[in-house]
Amino acid sequence: MKKVEVDLLLYNGTVLTLVSDQIIENGFIAITGGRIVAIGQRYHDQLQPKEAWDLSSSLVMPGLINAHTHAAMVFFRGLADDLPLMEWLEKYIFPAERKNVNEELVYLGTLLACAEMIRSGTTTFCDMYIFEKEVAQAAKKAGMRAVVGEVLYDFPSPNVKSIDEGLQYTADLAEMWKNDPLIIPAVEPHATYTCSPGLIKRCKELSDVYSIPLIIHLSETESEVKLVKEKHGLTPVFYLDHLGVLSERLIADHCVKVTEDEMELLKRYGVKVVHCPESNMKLASGVAPVPELLAKGVVVGLGTDGCASNNNLDMFQEMDTAAKLHKVYREDPTAMNAISVVKMATINGAKVLGLENDLGSIEVGKKADLIIIDLNKPHLTPLYNHYSQLVYAVNGSDVTGSIIDGRVVMRDGKLTTIDEKIVMKEVRRIARNVSKSVL
Amino acid sequence: MKKVEVDLLLYNGTVLTLVSDQIIENGFIAITGGRIVAIGQRYHDQLQPKEAWDLSSSLVMPGLINAHTHAAMVFFRGLADDLPLMEWLEKYIFPAERKNVNEELVYLGTLLACAEMIRSGTTTFCDMYIFEKEVAQAAKKAGMRAVVGEVLYDFPSPNVKSIDEGLQYTADLAEMWKNDPLIIPAVEPHATYTCSPGLIKRCKELSDVYSIPLIIHLSETESEVKLVKEKHGLTPVFYLDHLGVLSERLIADHCVKVTEDEMELLKRYGVKVVHCPESNMKLASGVAPVPELLAKGVVVGLGTDGCASNNNLDMFQEMDTAAKLHKVYREDPTAMNAISVVKMATINGAKVLGLENDLGSIEVGKKADLIIIDLNKPHLTPLYNHYSQLVYAVNGSDVTGSIIDGRVVMRDGKLTTIDEKIVMKEVRRIARNVSKSVL
Repeated sequence: MKKVEVDLLLYNGTVLTLVSDQIIENGFIAITGGRIVAIGQRYHDQLQPKEAWDLSSSLVMPGLINAHTHAAMVFFRGLADDLPLMEWLEKYIFPAERKNVNEELVYLGTLLACAEMIRSGTTTFCDMYIFEKEVAQAAKKAGMRAVVGEVLYDFPSPNVKSIDEGLQYTADLAEMWKNDPLIIPAVEPHATYTCSPGLIKRCKELSDVYSIPLIIHLSETESEVKLVKEKHGLTPVFYLDHLGVLSERLIADHCVKVTEDEMELLKRYGVKVVHCPESNMKLASGVAPVPELLAKGVVVGLGTDGCASNNNLDMFQEMDTAAKLHKVYREDPTAMNAISVVKMATINGAKVLGLENDLGSIEVGKKADLIIIDLNKPHLTPLYNHYSQLVYAVNGSDVTGSIIDGRVVMRDGKLTTIDEKIVMKEVRRIARNVSKSVL
Repeated sequence: MKKVEVDLLLYNGTVLTLVSDQIIENGFIAITGGRIVAIGQRYHDQLQPKEAWDLSSSLVMPGLINAHTHAAMVFFRGLADDLPLMEWLEKYIFPAERKNVNEELVYLGTLLACAEMIRSGTTTFCDMYIFEKEVAQAAKKAGMRAVVGEVLYDFPSPNVKSIDEGLQYTADLAEMWKNDPLIIPAVEPHATYTCSPGLIKRCKELSDVYSIPLIIHLSETESEVKLVKEKHGLTPVFYLDHLGVLSERLIADHCVKVTEDEMELLKRYGVKVVHCPESNMKLASGVAPVPELLAKGVVVGLGTDGCASNNNLDMFQEMDTAAKLHKVYREDPTAMNAISVVKMATINGAKVLGLENDLGSIEVGKKADLIIIDLNKPHLTPLYNHYSQLVYAVNGSDVTGSIIDGRVVMRDGKLTTIDEKIVMKEVRRIARNVSKSVL
């Protein structure tokens, strides 16, 4: 019998498919041309792989989707913490950004963030920052899948001097990457309180022209709600409805302070929501009504937010926090279970980004975005329930392998696409200036 | 010039002393006879070490003190999660304990827990469980410092059949370990709602006879407060005051539901408190008023609680959660800062256990309980503030070395006292029975 050639075979592992909660023990996954071509149990003798990984005592699952971050902000990790919000922003983060952020910082910062994300199990991230052409280049270099969009607001940024320039930059991004297998462009107005109605509407038009996501921070804090109400007489979600921008392609980050009626509206239009519990905790913004959103059928993904407000990009810790936070906030241990949180970080994250046909679960035909977790560790022993273990016991450092679009980006804990030592050295060099610029 | 011989020299590292926030760059620590004999910057040429570690790009800090756990409950990690409290306890945890817990399980479980704790930076743990003679043996084997005390309540346990037997077992423990350098016995009535007034008073007497800690779960949940009020007409802390057991040697675990007046009482008597935020979140118990306790001057340590309600023993994740939880709960980003949390896990943990003369900071004359953290990693780059990095970015897997009582228990990520492979294998064997016993 002729054997079938495949690019990469993963075998002898526990396969957490995220399809109807199916878990395959002693499972295999065959990958060819960047996609999953076969999945099964034990028998893989008919396959002839160019490369094969024995996953004994490891688990393979869909790569995690960090649905909201500002990757290059790793540069501000720990620069200033534990401060009142306005002091933190106005004395540290804004000046540090004004004085330091340029193409080089964004490229290097994103590359460092990619190293951290790959190491901790993320294979796709959705970014919002400035100089996003650099973010796309860095993600491409790292071999990561990324949604990239230049952050837009009414005032000039270190990158673009006007609204027109910002929209043009975004259109350029959309043109440059429109058929790329890894990079997905997006239109990203910053927030309802920093963007004029006109800008938000123009962003919506641009996202329609290219059929790409429209992404905005929404209802993150009480003060945002107050500001928007004062200025426009409406709470943020109703205000966006009034502007006609609610749609299935709108991704709303945070949604901490949304009301019951606003949740209904999000559901009605199929708006996607991204939950960032650690950032919301650290900045003391509040607790998003995620169990309520899920109960209404709103699709909710999970994000770390940027490293200035987290301060790491570890999606496993984010899952742990998400599950526990809603329990204590509602004084109900059933408020959020482990599997819901794993779904937020995988298949629902894919739905948020409109990529569920390609990502988020292990199925034949889907893209091979997969991570390997070493279960043979004291803190992961014994093992009764895979979802519980992933959410409450695993941390990002337990990830040993990562495959994105069929390409191996980490093998046995070694990155194949990024020279971390050089990146860290360069980041430290620039960080010395960042430090001086605010102290 | 004659050189001074020392057992172990750590050099070229960043030394986080926890003494007046002093951090020594390019620092060294010399250890002899289990104690720190010299600390300084750069010049250590006059020392002749038997063993020397170059800590370039690493940080050395006091070993973490896990001030409340039930180590052997690693056996129930992920056995049942996300359930209503009573269902979780009565359908899973209690039956699993009744049917499975014996000397062997406790010894192996504690050994596994020690492996996990050493790996994640804990050097001292304060334990409460059954068969605590086995816990002491396992900690001793692992080379860990441990406070051990048999949990006592009105009803029989798998270990002791009566109150008299339990108190005798505790007295035996106290005798056996009274002059040990690593093991510290304690008297541990379970809680106000599971122990009669007589038992609590006899525990207090026993702790006075041996001058050892008295440890109790206190005011952990609303239902506990309700029960105690109904039965004794007093809230839990006032009830303990009424029994005459409040003292500087009392360690009160959790204190989630303490009132303003109860906090005053805790302060007045010098009672120590242990905060377990992840367990309180996961069981949906509530948020302990730790900022208020600290403001009153109550000494507060940090604990993971057992693995059935966490589900790991990683004190770095616990620090992260502690800092963030109080921020969001009070909607105030200054509610708990990074250095306060690091102190909770080190010097204040030492004070909780009455061991602050020996532990919790890096000072000449103190015991050499030290951990090494590798800072040369993407998720720990750049580095602006050591405390922020430790609390918000580091996780337990970043710990590469551990020294307890001057003895190396982990070197370059390898445990020297425990054969993890064998322990994990044995634990998995028994875990299969645990699983069958409840499913």
